[in-house]
Amino acid sequence: MAVSRLEAVSLSMPGLLLFLSIHLAASQHPLPSPDEECSRRVHPVVSYQALRPWVSSFSFAGVQDYSQLALDINRNQLIVGARNYLFKLSLFNISLIQVECQNYIRVLLISGKKLFTCGTNAFLPVCTTRQIGNLSRVIDRVNGVARCPYDPRHNSTAVVTSQGELYAATVIDFSGRDPVIYRSLGNMPPLRTAQYNSKWLNEPNFIAAYDMGLFTYFFLRENAVEHDCGKVVYSRVARVCKNDLGGRFLLEDTWTTFMKARLNCSRSGEIPFYYNELQSTFYLPEQDLLYGIFTTNVNSIAASAVCSFNLSAITQAFNGPFRYQENPRSTWLPTPNPIPNFQCGTVNDNTPNENLTERSLQDAQRLFLMNDVVQPVSVDPLVTQDNVRFSKLVVDIVQGRDTLHHVMYIGTEYGTILKVLATSNKSLRGCFLEEMQLLPSGQREPILSLQILHSDRSLFVGLNGNVLKIPLERCSNYKTER
Amino acid sequence: MAVSRLEAVSLSMPGLLLFLSIHLAASQHPLPSPDEECSRRVHPVVSYQALRPWVSSFSFAGVQDYSQLALDINRNQLIVGARNYLFKLSLFNISLIQVECQNYIRVLLISGKKLFTCGTNAFLPVCTTRQIGNLSRVIDRVNGVARCPYDPRHNSTAVVTSQGELYAATVIDFSGRDPVIYRSLGNMPPLRTAQYNSKWLNEPNFIAAYDMGLFTYFFLRENAVEHDCGKVVYSRVARVCKNDLGGRFLLEDTWTTFMKARLNCSRSGEIPFYYNELQSTFYLPEQDLLYGIFTTNVNSIAASAVCSFNLSAITQAFNGPFRYQENPRSTWLPTPNPIPNFQCGTVNDNTPNENLTERSLQDAQRLFLMNDVVQPVSVDPLVTQDNVRFSKLVVDIVQGRDTLHHVMYIGTEYGTILKVLATSNKSLRGCFLEEMQLLPSGQREPILSLQILHSDRSLFVGLNGNVLKIPLERCSNYKTER
Repeated sequence: MAVSRLEAVSLSMPGLLLFLSIHLAASQHPLPSPDEECSRRVHPVVSYQALRPWVSSFSFAGVQDYSQLALDINRNQLIVGARNYLFKLSLFNISLIQVECQNYIRVLLISGKKLFTCGTNAFLPVCTTRQIGNLSRVIDRVNGVARCPYDPRHNSTAVVTSQGELYAATVIDFSGRDPVIYRSLGNMPPLRTAQYNSKWLNEPNFIAAYDMGLFTYFFLRENAVEHDCGKVVYSRVARVCKNDLGGRFLLEDTWTTFMKARLNCSRSGEIPFYYNELQSTFYLPEQDLLYGIFTTNVNSIAASAVCSFNLSAITQAFNGPFRYQENPRSTWLPTPNPIPNFQCGTVNDNTPNENLTERSLQDAQRLFLMNDVVQPVSVDPLVTQDNVRFSKLVVDIVQGRDTLHHVMYIGTEYGTILKVLATSNKSLRGCFLEEMQLLPSGQREPILSLQILHSDRSLFVGLNGNVLKIPLERCSNYKTER
Repeated sequence: MAVSRLEAVSLSMPGLLLFLSIHLAASQHPLPSPDEECSRRVHPVVSYQALRPWVSSFSFAGVQDYSQLALDINRNQLIVGARNYLFKLSLFNISLIQVECQNYIRVLLISGKKLFTCGTNAFLPVCTTRQIGNLSRVIDRVNGVARCPYDPRHNSTAVVTSQGELYAATVIDFSGRDPVIYRSLGNMPPLRTAQYNSKWLNEPNFIAAYDMGLFTYFFLRENAVEHDCGKVVYSRVARVCKNDLGGRFLLEDTWTTFMKARLNCSRSGEIPFYYNELQSTFYLPEQDLLYGIFTTNVNSIAASAVCSFNLSAITQAFNGPFRYQENPRSTWLPTPNPIPNFQCGTVNDNTPNENLTERSLQDAQRLFLMNDVVQPVSVDPLVTQDNVRFSKLVVDIVQGRDTLHHVMYIGTEYGTILKVLATSNKSLRGCFLEEMQLLPSGQREPILSLQILHSDRSLFVGLNGNVLKIPLERCSNYKTER
């Protein structure tokens, strides 16, 4: 179902401004002020039928779980991992270019002209490097253990750095009890997090990994080890130095630069209400800004929020004091950071350090939890909604009258995409612009994957039954239907 | 507006059984099974108009806040405390018998032929003892400090024991920062909780007090001092021995028998969801069973639950280990209970104890928080509802086909009463029987007070604008309307 998208594509920046203005003011007569409309959280719902003419869809007979999407912009391709299949689609109309068999894909990374994929392969995880121009050309095949989980239900993530190392955050054993952040491939020695040490990682769910400067960052949620008041999950950012060589005698084959900090996304108040569980992230590298979807625990009342974090706020937490527990009978207490502006040892490059990373191995073993919590850009979340669980998000930047607006596209667990304004303008913050229903009424399933291609002004959506492409703007809609 | 209630009153136990059966099966055609109906939580809503013919109402021109109701069964009277007024009404049709002026009443207790009231009296709290036969006859007037708060917005509670002592749980100072459980009047020496000791009481909201056997029990919520993981409110049961004489040198004029334990009301699961904040209790003395309304924090998503606790479970927690913090840098750890079945010193009456209560004063000063949490009768709450805050409840006992059913009448913050089945039969548990709308549509205000008179089969409801009497059964309703 390919449709003409010319109209949407031809929208220039002034057009977007117009579009945004229409959006903010068009849903009611007489026209309310933007404030009024936003605070009411009344938003136009675009039904499946109304949306259909705008949507391109791809599906393959008998194939489900289109959960991995990767954009290959250089070749105008969309690589899709689904259960037992790997697809190469055209970016323009998501028509099929090539199809290959591969079991339950959980890692799908494009690195230059290579495609790196890992699949659970019926509990024998395996990773494959393929030529992106021809997916049938397998360049290399390696064991997938510590790079991909055994079980497709375990959350894992991975990133290939510009230097070609693979950083994978996954579970290493069959039962899923040995979580790991593991570096392999490339030219650096393989390193991992301390094994069976629940203070380093405590039943984590890994969400995302990013290669940023000297560090590789990991976003996850895990049981809060510093919380002695009953089991609670906290959201975290963790990082390791890319130049880490591991310890000698102590921390052999193990990170000497692993640190983690709590991410706070909460409704303020005398007793804040915490959205504890990170579900999904989106990184805007131009702004050094990370968006995260946070929800309540699955056993709690459903509630979701989006918070965004400046990379500088994350760095600030890592530069601050640590939190340390002397023994199991003592509380977790702040302890000063021996190297407050830790730069992976690269500052003193002329005076070689034994382990390259400035830190003493004793410190590296005991000081890894930061005392300060990473605070989001705004005190309260950018958007909250009760009784709903958000699943994925991407963010678009559009030029408003005076300022840049961030427009969030938030996938829900029931198959809709919410379009919500995130802006420094408080009166417009959390303004729901519209909700797109991607499924026929009565059908409910989560958005599995969401990718945005800013240059093409389009969204790519992975669902259980198909992949969709939706233009970001559907202007004739406003011309004809209003 | 007095109506004939003869039909409802004449309902005998078999009649109640019939009534319950009708209730459980009458709301849909074709008749669903009780299980089906209950699990759907679809319940008949009785509108204000439909309820009106059954309701008697009392109000007095210009008077608001009918928040204190006390039943005087011996004289068939209902005593009502409202802002600036004290009313004596007939139990039969809540018609006015007598009216007296008294400022903002916060304590209203009937003890034999006396009525004890305390009012905030424009920030000069004062308590008055009156002859219940003639409310104008003031027998005694005492300072209200430590018996009644200065500010009507502070939650306080009090009970007069059979021996004539007043146990009040309130705030003692003008600013509300010095909370106290204080005994006065009667023949025992006045005693209080340790002053400015936030481990004993930490910003408490007192809910209820009961005279039970050797002890006086208090139900409250307060900041959890043992929770080092951010500010959280816990619900508590606390108790003191009625024969406590206070300490000598140590704990002078202070309780030597004060203990408290956490009350758990939560949705079970790997990470339980806690309804942390106790709002209201109802005690069924024949069953030694205490019902409590628990909600989430005011800053959280609104959610409410009802849990019930056996007195034996409360006693068990008080017989178990204590929880104790050696110093501010150590965690709270369990420590054995030196006197596991503490009976206020009455067991060894022949061997006189220095302070009458067996406990060493050193123990009394440091061991007051119990390690074990009081668990409710059922793992999950008897009833839960999201997006609503319950305010008050009373419980009726009706004979079912094979077993006794507890029927809860739950007041909400928006002026309705939910009638919900609480039963050991799991398939019927939490079954919503009906919802009565006490206010015209569009009006929303909380139920301030709720009293049940089992012998008269009626409910008395205190609202901001009036007092209502509603029969528990409205059988002709089912005859005529269905």
